[in-house]
Amino acid sequence: MNEIKNRIWLEKVIRTALEEDLGAGDLTTNAIIEHEMNGQAVLMTRETIVLAGLPVFSRVFELLDPDVRFDYDFQDGMRVPAGGRICVVAGKLSAILEAERTALNFAQRMSGIATLTRQYVDQIGSLKTKIIDTRKTAPGLRLLDKYAVVMGGGHNHRMGLFDGILIKDNHIAAAGSIKKAVLLAKEKAPHTIKVEVEVEDLTGLDEAIQAGADMVLLDNMSADLIQKAVDLAGKRVLLEASGGIKLENIQEIAKAGVDLISVGALTHSARAVDLSLEVITIP
Amino acid sequence: MNEIKNRIWLEKVIRTALEEDLGAGDLTTNAIIEHEMNGQAVLMTRETIVLAGLPVFSRVFELLDPDVRFDYDFQDGMRVPAGGRICVVAGKLSAILEAERTALNFAQRMSGIATLTRQYVDQIGSLKTKIIDTRKTAPGLRLLDKYAVVMGGGHNHRMGLFDGILIKDNHIAAAGSIKKAVLLAKEKAPHTIKVEVEVEDLTGLDEAIQAGADMVLLDNMSADLIQKAVDLAGKRVLLEASGGIKLENIQEIAKAGVDLISVGALTHSARAVDLSLEVITIP
Amino acid sequence: MNEIKNRIWLEKVIRTALEEDLGAGDLTTNAIIEHEMNGQAVLMTRETIVLAGLPVFSRVFELLDPDVRFDYDFQDGMRVPAGGRICVVAGKLSAILEAERTALNFAQRMSGIATLTRQYVDQIGSLKTKIIDTRKTAPGLRLLDKYAVVMGGGHNHRMGLFDGILIKDNHIAAAGSIKKAVLLAKEKAPHTIKVEVEVEDLTGLDEAIQAGADMVLLDNMSADLIQKAVDLAGKRVLLEASGGIKLENIQEIAKAGVDLISVGALTHSARAVDLSLEVITIP
Amino acid sequence: MNEIKNRIWLEKVIRTALEEDLGAGDLTTNAIIEHEMNGQAVLMTRETIVLAGLPVFSRVFELLDPDVRFDYDFQDGMRVPAGGRICVVAGKLSAILEAERTALNFAQRMSGIATLTRQYVDQIGSLKTKIIDTRKTAPGLRLLDKYAVVMGGGHNHRMGLFDGILIKDNHIAAAGSIKKAVLLAKEKAPHTIKVEVEVEDLTGLDEAIQAGADMVLLDNMSADLIQKAVDLAGKRVLLEASGGIKLENIQEIAKAGVDLISVGALTHSARAVDLSLEVITIP
Amino acid sequence: MNEIKNRIWLEKVIRTALEEDLGAGDLTTNAIIEHEMNGQAVLMTRETIVLAGLPVFSRVFELLDPDVRFDYDFQDGMRVPAGGRICVVAGKLSAILEAERTALNFAQRMSGIATLTRQYVDQIGSLKTKIIDTRKTAPGLRLLDKYAVVMGGGHNHRMGLFDGILIKDNHIAAAGSIKKAVLLAKEKAPHTIKVEVEVEDLTGLDEAIQAGADMVLLDNMSADLIQKAVDLAGKRVLLEASGGIKLENIQEIAKAGVDLISVGALTHSARAVDLSLEVITIP
Amino acid sequence: MNEIKNRIWLEKVIRTALEEDLGAGDLTTNAIIEHEMNGQAVLMTRETIVLAGLPVFSRVFELLDPDVRFDYDFQDGMRVPAGGRICVVAGKLSAILEAERTALNFAQRMSGIATLTRQYVDQIGSLKTKIIDTRKTAPGLRLLDKYAVVMGGGHNHRMGLFDGILIKDNHIAAAGSIKKAVLLAKEKAPHTIKVEVEVEDLTGLDEAIQAGADMVLLDNMSADLIQKAVDLAGKRVLLEASGGIKLENIQEIAKAGVDLISVGALTHSARAVDLSLEVITIP
Repeated sequence: MNEIKNRIWLEKVIRTALEEDLGAGDLTTNAIIEHEMNGQAVLMTRETIVLAGLPVFSRVFELLDPDVRFDYDFQDGMRVPAGGRICVVAGKLSAILEAERTALNFAQRMSGIATLTRQYVDQIGSLKTKIIDTRKTAPGLRLLDKYAVVMGGGHNHRMGLFDGILIKDNHIAAAGSIKKAVLLAKEKAPHTIKVEVEVEDLTGLDEAIQAGADMVLLDNMSADLIQKAVDLAGKRVLLEASGGIKLENIQEIAKAGVDLISVGALTHSARAVDLSLEVITIP
Repeated sequence: MNEIKNRIWLEKVIRTALEEDLGAGDLTTNAIIEHEMNGQAVLMTRETIVLAGLPVFSRVFELLDPDVRFDYDFQDGMRVPAGGRICVVAGKLSAILEAERTALNFAQRMSGIATLTRQYVDQIGSLKTKIIDTRKTAPGLRLLDKYAVVMGGGHNHRMGLFDGILIKDNHIAAAGSIKKAVLLAKEKAPHTIKVEVEVEDLTGLDEAIQAGADMVLLDNMSADLIQKAVDLAGKRVLLEASGGIKLENIQEIAKAGVDLISVGALTHSARAVDLSLEVITIP
Repeated sequence: MNEIKNRIWLEKVIRTALEEDLGAGDLTTNAIIEHEMNGQAVLMTRETIVLAGLPVFSRVFELLDPDVRFDYDFQDGMRVPAGGRICVVAGKLSAILEAERTALNFAQRMSGIATLTRQYVDQIGSLKTKIIDTRKTAPGLRLLDKYAVVMGGGHNHRMGLFDGILIKDNHIAAAGSIKKAVLLAKEKAPHTIKVEVEVEDLTGLDEAIQAGADMVLLDNMSADLIQKAVDLAGKRVLLEASGGIKLENIQEIAKAGVDLISVGALTHSARAVDLSLEVITIP
Repeated sequence: MNEIKNRIWLEKVIRTALEEDLGAGDLTTNAIIEHEMNGQAVLMTRETIVLAGLPVFSRVFELLDPDVRFDYDFQDGMRVPAGGRICVVAGKLSAILEAERTALNFAQRMSGIATLTRQYVDQIGSLKTKIIDTRKTAPGLRLLDKYAVVMGGGHNHRMGLFDGILIKDNHIAAAGSIKKAVLLAKEKAPHTIKVEVEVEDLTGLDEAIQAGADMVLLDNMSADLIQKAVDLAGKRVLLEASGGIKLENIQEIAKAGVDLISVGALTHSARAVDLSLEVITIP
Repeated sequence: MNEIKNRIWLEKVIRTALEEDLGAGDLTTNAIIEHEMNGQAVLMTRETIVLAGLPVFSRVFELLDPDVRFDYDFQDGMRVPAGGRICVVAGKLSAILEAERTALNFAQRMSGIATLTRQYVDQIGSLKTKIIDTRKTAPGLRLLDKYAVVMGGGHNHRMGLFDGILIKDNHIAAAGSIKKAVLLAKEKAPHTIKVEVEVEDLTGLDEAIQAGADMVLLDNMSADLIQKAVDLAGKRVLLEASGGIKLENIQEIAKAGVDLISVGALTHSARAVDLSLEVITIP
Repeated sequence: MNEIKNRIWLEKVIRTALEEDLGAGDLTTNAIIEHEMNGQAVLMTRETIVLAGLPVFSRVFELLDPDVRFDYDFQDGMRVPAGGRICVVAGKLSAILEAERTALNFAQRMSGIATLTRQYVDQIGSLKTKIIDTRKTAPGLRLLDKYAVVMGGGHNHRMGLFDGILIKDNHIAAAGSIKKAVLLAKEKAPHTIKVEVEVEDLTGLDEAIQAGADMVLLDNMSADLIQKAVDLAGKRVLLEASGGIKLENIQEIAKAGVDLISVGALTHSARAVDLSLEVITIP
């Protein structure tokens, strides 16, 4: 998913967003802007960001003006300083004005996620632990949210319920025990997918490993307990720490030696970064 | 839009979100949960919130289990204390587990927006100024984001480019002057729609009023300047303050006497509230 | 909406229409026309019309032959005399034959609406009253129907229930009085939208104005009564005459001084104009 | 197609129409009508009509209120006198008001087509000639337009390019002669479909019959010439008269003995009939 | 339908298939293939086939790489020997790898149908009987399945329930007799469509002809009985043999003189042919 | 995916199939069958099958008649003897006749796949090797094809490119070596997904294991070579045999000790089983 090149789902997301904003048409632009007038617009950032969503931003304009042109100074995944010029858009002024808000809404959200992710990743420094996302994304925007996490230096957990197995407390309760749940999953689930199970203590971890789990999610454990879990697991399974992760404590948890730390806030609570599009009319 | 009763657009949004998460199916639930098993789940909040999105939350479950039942303790727009039980879901356990994350993603985002909105509204107290939203919403979720603002005590600005006129600096530059832009809008735009124009100083405000604008957006003005604008306008137009609004300064700006204060952060940067769904297996 | 440039909704309408006519394919053309054969076609009108729908007409051909070319003698909004050549289409003969009926169906309906609208507008002459449309459009074709009204010199009333407020008798009955209904609307409705209310007599008009309505629809009133309403209103509100408007009486009503006259027949009962597409095979 | 019972295409048409009118929601109803209030509405006709579209009318309300109920006095295909009560709708008042215009737009157009068709059919009296429609329908509404023709006593020509063969002048020109075109069609086209060819004189008719056409369209011929064509054909082919057909001359043409008379005006130029929906609030 | 040139339905089928396989993206290609790397691929057949589906195959690649180029050695409908090179694809390597399986799935199925059809057609030799398909196609792929039959030298029966009339035993039972069913069909059905009725013996055939059927399906009759049916019919109706047709007995049945032989196996049981796509990386 | 309970994608597949067959309506049924007539139909099999697709079969009828009822004698996954009655459908006769072919097309294809899969599975007997499918499915029907494989006792390989990693020769060539490709995949791909690589000899297998592959696909190897591969791997990786698998040789290959054997023919070349729907009119 590192390249947003498969247009089929992306086109649908962008068209839905454009229709939501444009509807029957832009009353203001229709009333004031000559249809033939051209213009340029400069995308700037008012704060230091990690950029994500530039191909989506551009595609919004292309849908309203197939002849629009772009001049890029930065690419997705790059850090852009406050005041930095990201790209220049040149085309029909009316299309630029109509696409502006929708394009910015994508870029501001996605760059917000990438920028927040980078903050977490920077806390980890040279440690091998990977920062991963969750399924706590904005409905309809999961693929873009998760792409932004990668642009910020994070990694993706499963995309949905269909491409990963994560046995949670409810599944365990229904199965009767961690062991039973893991065995059922290993028997019935696709052989291409690893089996991960959520545990709340070291006993659970031990049971999961014995049952043959490939990965274990350590739920809401302290750094100390995580350290013990790492020792107990002895690299027999991948270990993911989850729950209560913040910028303040992530380094400590990473040092405890887990392979993965998942952070829901990356996608459910990133604030939009402050981008602006300065439009210049061309006479 | 106060009632989310027009199912036509809502169904599409929910189906898109469910497909995004469920895809071909829930590998974990398919492997472990007996298809015939029933269950109950309790929606709780771990923090004090203003609730929004409950009908959307419920509809997600209904799409996977038409016979699911709900028992509600709260409704959208109500304040729910930390630890409060919002509702109970009873139906097929497999459907509950499959719908859980998608339903929570809606409710957590929407309640996050409502809760943040309420914080701004509470700052205003008994003043008549209305807190309004912007078009800075998550792509594809605008109607839900704006519904959540209303649930938090805010009001909606235009839904999109099609149902309101807001003449911005770029339109003014293209038209030649505030006056010319306003006159064009009044001539060409639908008679049902009010004409709003963005100004940066009192001269602009005066020009806008003279030209016949119905509303004026005061862009990034200090509380002092806003006070002068209110005096100058003398109730001849609706005045909207916008730009740089924070919880810290909104009361001061409201006291200056504007009719409306728009806050982009309500929808572009609200954090998700912390809801949980506790599932209980029924033997 | 004056420019049909936002392709997103238009593409859907055209694709639906093409699929409806073409389905699995054109049996006649498939059997008889060589796939490689080119052709030209001339769009003519057999009667004097006001043209509307040319960009839609063209787009139908483009969807079946991306390389088709057009040579235009007229543009939307222009009057074309009987026998006038509107444009020439050149491209693959098979695509021209397959697109012909669908393209004509759009252009004949839209030009019919524009031509009828112009007849009403011409009755008004230099009076300031605007001729406006209603929501009585062909299901699925509203944006095109309303675009055609503008091409004929008319103006648009609200596009739908979402971008204008019109309080009718049923709303008044439910609210209890004109005053109560108007006050509710002004309190709850978006500040960007004007509040219009329908009244049946001068008492109603007075009540509406007192309550703060922005616009009043005078329902089925005689020209005499309308005159009195105009006097009573004294420019405090916009006045719209509606009901029983015909080519024969519209001038009299306009002279009475209303701002707007709405005519449902423009879109619900315009007859299709008589266009023809003469195809010339190119050897 | 006599029963509109295949919901798959009909649902799409109705949803599109409802979305077009309702969009984000009905501002007026949302502001004024209590969500829990119930109501009744009576569908009346202000003129004598042939009814068509009642199941479509009803379905619009059902989509907004699944519990709405109907009490019918008439069915599609029946003549309803001016002032006649067609049906009563009972359900949520808000849903009734939101569905009203869309439902009426369908019923008024469809009944308009049925009523006009019946006028043509009545001219034919007891003659065996069938009145048939054309492909000159409103884009996106063909199946409903053609259903309405049947309700008015007419019959359907082919639904589209995919289910009938009609060789026109352009096909003949491309093939080289009527004979060559007919032979190509008979060789390549599906054996389930009859081959019809358009001719302009008796020579063409003779050539078409010799070549094995199943049906011949007599294009723009006088009643006299049609009479001769009927004699020449001697029941070897079905004969369709087309072009220049009006209420005034259709009887004469029918008497000339053709099997079918096609009338484009039935669907492209029928005016909407005058229906009203009187809503009664229930306290 | 001989040309697959109407992109509207074809695009939908291909997009659905691509989304089904690609989903959020190709994990393997994303991880390993440089986005900028180009490549070539050669489509070969490992067995002798009749080719069908090449335009569909190509279109799949185009949707992922608009700049992809093709060099064709064969066209649809041609026989390609085992080991034959069908075409070369040149473009982005990542797009080629992502499109490969979907493109092959189309081409292998369609060529399988064409190849099997040709085997049946070759059994007929110079006899005039046409081999036709049925509605027993893969759900969602009917138009492609039927196109493949034509490429294999077969002909199409009706496309669906909407473009042909075939009265079966159940219809006859409901109507009361063959005669009544045929008369009802001739009265109510479109005049453009021939009426076919299924019979099980010569008495039924006689009754069908007397009632005016245009075509008769001889259901599961022996070659001997078919011979008698042909004699009885004496070219008054088209005769279709159906049921129990195999490669071994089709020649005998054709010799009995029927006009059409329908074979469900062509589309419901053709095996996929063995095609391969050899990809060559370009440094 | 073992339960087809997520209606969201299934509804789309069924609606597409129904529209393909029904289009504007069933001409034959419309002409002959009284709309109010009820009927029953019995689904039988003329040969011994493993049943798959019964919920899909039923859903087709439900979409045309929401009140239809079913009485089941068998369920998906069960073996049904030749002549066995599978279920009885009772409802509107017209809906039964209209749904019949589409419903049968699903059930015959899916049961064909299940029946063929069971033949392969039966060859394996009590050996632990799993029979798995491939991505060689009918475009648009993958989820149903793969569901049918499970009903036949087989297992699913990855659903698409998005939920499994399979490094093929082209990826290896682009990466430079098996080792490099595997390392890239392990570094960049999601941690939830196992890495599988295709090898052609034992050297490749060794390299893959050393590089850390989770699974290895043995491409077109003889049973002897596979035996050696199993010995070499020593359970360090999952081994999949692929290519050239037939009913005749699958047992030998399974005995060689591979974990998985993939068979493309299960889905790309299964023949439809012979089901019939006997309809009984109810007076």
